Amino acid sequence: MKVLVAGGAGFIGSNLIDALLAEGHSVVCVDNFFIGTRKNIEHLHGHERFTFYEQDLADLAAVKQIFRKEKFDFVFHMAANSDIQASAAAPEVEYKNTYTTTFNILEAMRTEGVKRLFFCSTSAVYGDAQGAHVDENYAPLAPISYYGACKLGCEGLISAFTYMNDFHTLVFRFPNVIGPRLTHGAVFDFVKRLKADPTQLTILGDGHQCKPYLYVGDLVECITRFTKELPQGVTVYNVGGESQSTVTGIAQIVCREMGLKNVQFHYTGGRGGWKGDVPEFAYNLDKIHAAGWHASMTSDEAVARTVRDVL
Amino acid sequence: MKVLVAGGAGFIGSNLIDALLAEGHSVVCVDNFFIGTRKNIEHLHGHERFTFYEQDLADLAAVKQIFRKEKFDFVFHMAANSDIQASAAAPEVEYKNTYTTTFNILEAMRTEGVKRLFFCSTSAVYGDAQGAHVDENYAPLAPISYYGACKLGCEGLISAFTYMNDFHTLVFRFPNVIGPRLTHGAVFDFVKRLKADPTQLTILGDGHQCKPYLYVGDLVECITRFTKELPQGVTVYNVGGESQSTVTGIAQIVCREMGLKNVQFHYTGGRGGWKGDVPEFAYNLDKIHAAGWHASMTSDEAVARTVRDVL
Repeated sequence: MKVLVAGGAGFIGSNLIDALLAEGHSVVCVDNFFIGTRKNIEHLHGHERFTFYEQDLADLAAVKQIFRKEKFDFVFHMAANSDIQASAAAPEVEYKNTYTTTFNILEAMRTEGVKRLFFCSTSAVYGDAQGAHVDENYAPLAPISYYGACKLGCEGLISAFTYMNDFHTLVFRFPNVIGPRLTHGAVFDFVKRLKADPTQLTILGDGHQCKPYLYVGDLVECITRFTKELPQGVTVYNVGGESQSTVTGIAQIVCREMGLKNVQFHYTGGRGGWKGDVPEFAYNLDKIHAAGWHASMTSDEAVARTVRDVL
Repeated sequence: MKVLVAGGAGFIGSNLIDALLAEGHSVVCVDNFFIGTRKNIEHLHGHERFTFYEQDLADLAAVKQIFRKEKFDFVFHMAANSDIQASAAAPEVEYKNTYTTTFNILEAMRTEGVKRLFFCSTSAVYGDAQGAHVDENYAPLAPISYYGACKLGCEGLISAFTYMNDFHTLVFRFPNVIGPRLTHGAVFDFVKRLKADPTQLTILGDGHQCKPYLYVGDLVECITRFTKELPQGVTVYNVGGESQSTVTGIAQIVCREMGLKNVQFHYTGGRGGWKGDVPEFAYNLDKIHAAGWHASMTSDEAVARTVRDVL
């Protein structure tokens, strides 16, 4: 089938494109290189089933024009601001890159008659709620970051567009994803900073922040598996691994994988890394497990493999 | 105090302004007359504590300029598209008038240091869920209209902006509100159409659609009462009366109040009025009752009084 990967030059999007091409699909990638990079898709140059548009998805007329020309069977919407820390000081980044891009894609689907959608949501819609009781029906949804707020708004739009236009929609809420082509976050930062100075590392917070990290290969396999047969309406899954990594643990893994010893860790102190950060996070995965999917590696394994990927 | 009433030339906004001026506040009204009208605020012309800006709140730079000039103590955000039926065919109306106006007001509050907010939300965030179990923590929130979708998105933004900037925010979720200056909806339409032809009336659906109608005077009293002392963080209330009116019941009340007899009712048939409409609605009001507030009139009394108001 012919698919759109919106935000396909990004970290997760470009990994998804590799998998979709391997499955034989024709892939149209639209990206404005806001966070995505030319490097992430340069290996696809000349591929007969790959087409690229450099286009800002916040431009509705342009989005509709691409839809009219390409006639998609399926839309994978991966475009968003993914740097939560950056948007904490500039909420407009989320309004434009996360919410408006989603509205425009849904509106183009509505007017051009495309019915099937995958959407990357996030555990940030849960705010600072966490624990085994945080399943897909958890309430109240009280996001504490502009990123989580705009993703929740996108989920609202998806609910109404899906109902009004008989879409078949899959929504995954997942936490930190890591792996090749990663562009930011603790693992990426630690590698970058330890390359510059292998004797010491400054760590935001007290190092006890604890989150589950999911390897991008696991996520992409889950996306391609669950989009094969999609019922009408919106289906929402929490997706992730069961284990977690602490920030100090990540720093230790990075040092180990880089072969560094006696690195001095400095902590800025406090509960979280920055305001809007969720210092600890785990949620209920019963639904995706019941559907037969489990992450193939632990959080610490995903961190170690990512360090080798990005070194 | 000096307050902004965004969307103050609208039906609910203009009724709220009357109450705020009566309490001695200075009121700045901003409206672009998209749904609001000059007629709704013409009686305020020349009032020494009333200022009006004709301005589209979807223009962020203009909104910030007004905030910088006026230095508000409190923002009452009533601006939105309120005609759900109209936006069912044009979701962009909600994106611009409901979501973008809210983002801009929150962003202006953030940059200009305003901390207190009242926001009009809606029972439409609950989708077609209804019943005594639908309290403020009900989930999943799955709106079926673009209006409900964008209001849910606004609530997400409010959650994050309030957390990140230490706002004191009150959110009311309420269903149909009626009274003087009403511009659309069943009561308004029936009066208008029966004035044109007092012998017959076409009714969308089967007439059994049943909703609670709240008199605007009751809502305004509730808003002014609960905004007097506002804790930090977001406080959400379902607001409404306990009784409901059926569409056929409304038609009968309108005929009675207009002194019409033997009016022929024609039904278009089906469950609801249009796609995205919620044909029956009632929700849990325990929280607002526990806080000491009850609607002063039944739904049918509100309908009858509104017919007299708009005749």
